[in-house]
Amino acid sequence: MIETDILIIGAGPTGLFTVFEAGLLKLRCHIIDSLPNPGGQLVELYPKKPIFDIPGFPTIQAAELIQNLQEQIKQFEPGFTLNEVAQTIDKQEDGTFIVTTDKGTQHKAKAIAIAAGLGSFEPRKPLIENIEKYEGKGVEYFIKNPELYRNKKLVIAGGGDSALDWSIFLSDIAEEVTLVHRRNEFRGALDSVEKVQDLKNKGKIKLITPAEVIGIHGDGKLESLIIEKENKKIEIFTDYFIPLFGLTPKLGPIAEWGLEIEKNAIKVNNALDYQTNIEGIYAIGDINIYPGKLKLILCGFHEATLMCQSIYNRINPNKKYVLKYTTVGGIQGFDGTVKEAEKAVVKSIE
Amino acid sequence: MIETDILIIGAGPTGLFTVFEAGLLKLRCHIIDSLPNPGGQLVELYPKKPIFDIPGFPTIQAAELIQNLQEQIKQFEPGFTLNEVAQTIDKQEDGTFIVTTDKGTQHKAKAIAIAAGLGSFEPRKPLIENIEKYEGKGVEYFIKNPELYRNKKLVIAGGGDSALDWSIFLSDIAEEVTLVHRRNEFRGALDSVEKVQDLKNKGKIKLITPAEVIGIHGDGKLESLIIEKENKKIEIFTDYFIPLFGLTPKLGPIAEWGLEIEKNAIKVNNALDYQTNIEGIYAIGDINIYPGKLKLILCGFHEATLMCQSIYNRINPNKKYVLKYTTVGGIQGFDGTVKEAEKAVVKSIE
Repeated sequence: MIETDILIIGAGPTGLFTVFEAGLLKLRCHIIDSLPNPGGQLVELYPKKPIFDIPGFPTIQAAELIQNLQEQIKQFEPGFTLNEVAQTIDKQEDGTFIVTTDKGTQHKAKAIAIAAGLGSFEPRKPLIENIEKYEGKGVEYFIKNPELYRNKKLVIAGGGDSALDWSIFLSDIAEEVTLVHRRNEFRGALDSVEKVQDLKNKGKIKLITPAEVIGIHGDGKLESLIIEKENKKIEIFTDYFIPLFGLTPKLGPIAEWGLEIEKNAIKVNNALDYQTNIEGIYAIGDINIYPGKLKLILCGFHEATLMCQSIYNRINPNKKYVLKYTTVGGIQGFDGTVKEAEKAVVKSIE
Repeated sequence: MIETDILIIGAGPTGLFTVFEAGLLKLRCHIIDSLPNPGGQLVELYPKKPIFDIPGFPTIQAAELIQNLQEQIKQFEPGFTLNEVAQTIDKQEDGTFIVTTDKGTQHKAKAIAIAAGLGSFEPRKPLIENIEKYEGKGVEYFIKNPELYRNKKLVIAGGGDSALDWSIFLSDIAEEVTLVHRRNEFRGALDSVEKVQDLKNKGKIKLITPAEVIGIHGDGKLESLIIEKENKKIEIFTDYFIPLFGLTPKLGPIAEWGLEIEKNAIKVNNALDYQTNIEGIYAIGDINIYPGKLKLILCGFHEATLMCQSIYNRINPNKKYVLKYTTVGGIQGFDGTVKEAEKAVVKSIE
């Protein structure tokens, strides 16, 4: 059982920044996310896109913002349960919660912060008979650990940035990369399309277009794929099949937790602390809704901050919290590190 | 008469970021500030201090954050009325407002955003008889334009960072800099204290301590100061006297505008749009108060953003606003500049 003060569901920018604000109040956090890496949409959907509306950054790449946030929070030592979906929640008599994931990992926390954005991302799966039988046995929808593919044969399917970028990246690691797409045209950053063209010319990426994977074979694990190209069927032997057809966000199991839902979002008390209809469960960032709500990252930061204050009061009902400015008081990390402004000296001038 | 969509009172981080969010909605802004430069407290009180709680910046110097915000908003061409205090407000029959400053400058706007932080900063003045007679005639409480002091004789009074840093800076420009402080000990960054010591050793700064300026003389303008040092009085001839004894924030004339005030702050409707009890007048950032309010810069950013949406609806009652993400739609500046993400290409790989 993992125990923490605030259990955060969702490792996007709002969830990550929560760790910082909680840390200032000496509250510890643990984050569950269905994706293999922190960062949510920003890392999974548009890592290289510039964002123009983060205050103080005339422009910042999405993945860079996530890196900065990870740097900002690391002194508060957040825990992570990645690749797992928060499935069930049980409120205990003492007011704490137990959250169990789809893989059975249990978490106990004094408060729950749902910062799940659009929900948990589920891969769009190709319509191939029996594909689910091979999931985790050669069929992968995410690249969790590139090392898994070292010196292996891979077939990647898809025509967008993910398919292009992972083909480029893995062509250096794998024994053989075959990219299958149902059209001749790819849609992505010019740079990526040109790089794949180049790697294809050099024989580092095998391209099969216009074509579709229509069958999977193997005894207990993936052994070969049937690919249809211009009405001809070919069989390709491979270790892995990685269809990268995009992600669909789903509210998922959270929708069954008894929270008030409106327009696929969780209703919160925006006049106070972004708490839901269940005391102790908060919703912040893109997943919540209230009058005037804007789904902007900068709003998630504010919501996280006010929420942490409310959670502090919930956990410490008899303590009076006095806001200390970081500029004045500095920051004391859980790891023993201290950040602070240079102190003024009092010194005579002779 | 200066005309604009949103008249912002206060050029601190919240006021500056308002220009950006308004600009996305094609609303123009003009900012009034009592200080000579944009940036509010961050520039005037702690320009070199690190701030640790701006999301996405593990650390950033206060003055650097202001520079970044100015860079972020410049494409939306904000107007500025600096060195003036918003004095009176008149609501017109058509719902617009006319705001007049202490120097008589008039501004007409469709909505008012009070982002005045702790209020307008007023200098702490030394208790010297007749000093007000010489204000603007040799006595200056702010360094508005350092060039004013080129090849002049100055007396600076004070023992903190401002007195130290301006003495250092102006010693290069002025003919003579005399620093007067009532103690021998100065209180400031070690680096600044050491630099003043060094400049004093080199004869570039004259130091008189422990001493106090106790009298001012001059016919129509400042000509000399009487300084008391260890019970002896000396007269020093000088062109300028710059007492830098710190700033005191005062709510000032805003307090007389009929707004609901609580604990020296302006009450707002935090459940919706941070509007005050007077329709069309909003208060954002440190100057407002609502249940759970935290006086943090990141909260000001959120408040500014929701306020701009509300102002958009006020100004365009029949238009339906649809949020466009900057990452997707880019940004079109009023100056004709465009910022956007590189577009995806659709291209065959042969």
